[in-house]
Amino acid sequence: MTTQFKWLFLQSNIVNLTPDMHQPAKLKELEKINPFRVMTVMHRAAALEVKGRKIVHMEVGEPDFNTATPIIEAAKNALDAGFTHYTAAAGIDELRNALAGHYLERYGVTVDKERILVTPGASGGLSLLANLLVGEGDGVLITDPAYPCVRNFIQLMNASPQLVPVDRSQNFQPTVQQLEGAADSSTCGVWLASPSNPTGSVLDREALADISSWCTDKSLHLLVDEIYHGLHYVDDLPSVLEIDDSAFVVNSFSKYFGMTGWRLGWIVVPDYAVDTASILAQNFYISPSSIAQHAALAGFMEATRLILEQRRQNFRERRDFLCASLREIGFVLAEEVQGAFYVYADISAFSENSEQFCHDMLENHGVAITPGTDFGDFKARQFVRFAYTTSMDDLALGVERLRRALHA
Amino acid sequence: MTTQFKWLFLQSNIVNLTPDMHQPAKLKELEKINPFRVMTVMHRAAALEVKGRKIVHMEVGEPDFNTATPIIEAAKNALDAGFTHYTAAAGIDELRNALAGHYLERYGVTVDKERILVTPGASGGLSLLANLLVGEGDGVLITDPAYPCVRNFIQLMNASPQLVPVDRSQNFQPTVQQLEGAADSSTCGVWLASPSNPTGSVLDREALADISSWCTDKSLHLLVDEIYHGLHYVDDLPSVLEIDDSAFVVNSFSKYFGMTGWRLGWIVVPDYAVDTASILAQNFYISPSSIAQHAALAGFMEATRLILEQRRQNFRERRDFLCASLREIGFVLAEEVQGAFYVYADISAFSENSEQFCHDMLENHGVAITPGTDFGDFKARQFVRFAYTTSMDDLALGVERLRRALHA
Repeated sequence: MTTQFKWLFLQSNIVNLTPDMHQPAKLKELEKINPFRVMTVMHRAAALEVKGRKIVHMEVGEPDFNTATPIIEAAKNALDAGFTHYTAAAGIDELRNALAGHYLERYGVTVDKERILVTPGASGGLSLLANLLVGEGDGVLITDPAYPCVRNFIQLMNASPQLVPVDRSQNFQPTVQQLEGAADSSTCGVWLASPSNPTGSVLDREALADISSWCTDKSLHLLVDEIYHGLHYVDDLPSVLEIDDSAFVVNSFSKYFGMTGWRLGWIVVPDYAVDTASILAQNFYISPSSIAQHAALAGFMEATRLILEQRRQNFRERRDFLCASLREIGFVLAEEVQGAFYVYADISAFSENSEQFCHDMLENHGVAITPGTDFGDFKARQFVRFAYTTSMDDLALGVERLRRALHA
Repeated sequence: MTTQFKWLFLQSNIVNLTPDMHQPAKLKELEKINPFRVMTVMHRAAALEVKGRKIVHMEVGEPDFNTATPIIEAAKNALDAGFTHYTAAAGIDELRNALAGHYLERYGVTVDKERILVTPGASGGLSLLANLLVGEGDGVLITDPAYPCVRNFIQLMNASPQLVPVDRSQNFQPTVQQLEGAADSSTCGVWLASPSNPTGSVLDREALADISSWCTDKSLHLLVDEIYHGLHYVDDLPSVLEIDDSAFVVNSFSKYFGMTGWRLGWIVVPDYAVDTASILAQNFYISPSSIAQHAALAGFMEATRLILEQRRQNFRERRDFLCASLREIGFVLAEEVQGAFYVYADISAFSENSEQFCHDMLENHGVAITPGTDFGDFKARQFVRFAYTTSMDDLALGVERLRRALHA
């Protein structure tokens, strides 16, 4: 057992700090904010690689492709043209217009460009919306499991994530009945993701409409994380904006557009929130990256679209292969993994402790995966997340290693 | 009088929102967060330019130079090399090492690279530190005037900015006696800036040492905004880290390194805060821009240093010209404008209302400047901020216009 692999041995995820006379009071309140276990997995995998081990990376929440060439070329042109200065806090008009066009073309919905704010990554957008929407003492309904930043942003507002456990039987998305049951007088809103990280499940048109109506009835805000839109393998993936123009949307150039390292995303807010959101944007980050914004314009070119759709096809093939292989080995998956690049797999056949399982797979079998405990509490020790953000060759190697490990 | 020029007519800066059944509770609490008046000045100046008016821009808080060529070229090389992915949340090792080297070379102080976190702009760093250091109900001592985001970040923590009025007679920096007088049992820290926006004044070695000792005695944290370091015109400009290794520092590649649109900065934190700061970084922004980080490495090349020092010389010449001219016209300035690219000027000879004064100068004389009311309350109607972020030709034109306007 290695000391580097710390997370397995932490009794809890509380951050321990060396006492010091200078230690400011506020650090104490941050005990609720957990480090991501996936980071520990990545660091440990890197350490093993330094020692010469071949590791199959199925933990990484980032496309393995470099950014598409037309976007790279657009960035270089922007650099030559001197676009190295601050932009408007809400982003350059060209990009906001392109995004409005994207909503019209892809979803058939008219979104006024004034309602679209370009942000420094989806993280910047989510942080802004947390400050805009969540007050001290508020409750926010979220699924368990969910992307871990979501509950952390809520906790940073001194508010409470109100967890709605979601299971395979319900495609890992909540019902109105569940939301109703988990809500109380403190509840201010509902934050969902479609497609979801870690489960890859989507909210269909009917589910979105039901939840939207319920939110309207209860005067709750509705926020939908759509950052994996475009990386979906179902025919119909509605944006919540097609159904509810009072909803808040977070999106990103990281995943479908393959621009992780550029740190660029966007949010869509209802009319009445535009001014306040813009003021927060000025305060929080002055402007998103000028270079990334000019580069992102090329994301809407036909040449880029062809590359991105080809990559989506690659992800689909990897999904097909990985899902079939994992099922064969004995993992239990959702009926259909619908989007993103994750498979959330039930490991009950092999282990009752997902952290121990991930530790064992990495240390003894060279396969890096993320324990369910990164994403919540509900059955978190019974699930792991596989990311298919690596080549088919590596996926095949990983599957072969898992097969040998689990059927020895 | 134009309706576009809204800020002049706002009774207060409260953000008014159209009532709506979907309006979430939290928006109400944001009433304390003010929009920046400088934004309104910039928008109005742009609108006048569209109509064909020549405007002299002395409102812009951003160097007018494009990013230096070696940095641009480094960015292009990074793009070609495929550095388009997430990096570690604290930044790439090469850049953290370069920054550690910068502290050793420029300040003669050893700063472990682990204590340096690269951030998405100084804004990202300041936001992170606010979350790290400031709890609900805390008080934070800051100067009045100060950079407006500072009080906004404190207010977003449901904490109180404790304003220490600073005047020309004290070089716009606080004394320990003043801090002592403004502190109370809620006070958790002191946030200062050297050089300061909007005043351009610096904290000398003795002042820093006094304030640091006082903070240590009182168990308060000390945070110093050093984002204008490098753009100073005094011989000795110490970093607080030379004096106090428990202090927190915010810095930026925007100003001296001329990389505003890239959104890259850094913070330095004491050892005991590194882990928690890193966890917040993961949550808040995953990683800073990979492209900007690789580009910034070129900021430490000799060829770049020569360009940046030449620009600093340009700023110094502009400062000399602008200060002399403004004094001649009848503005009252600090004895010595020591750093940044701002002159904070007392307009008592001409007006008792800085907002009206700025409105008049822009609308009737084509000179864009920022009213003191953007930076606080203390004598804010008696001061305006001039930025010398435009060419000498334009500065000369601006001065000529002011002379005609005020000595007609």
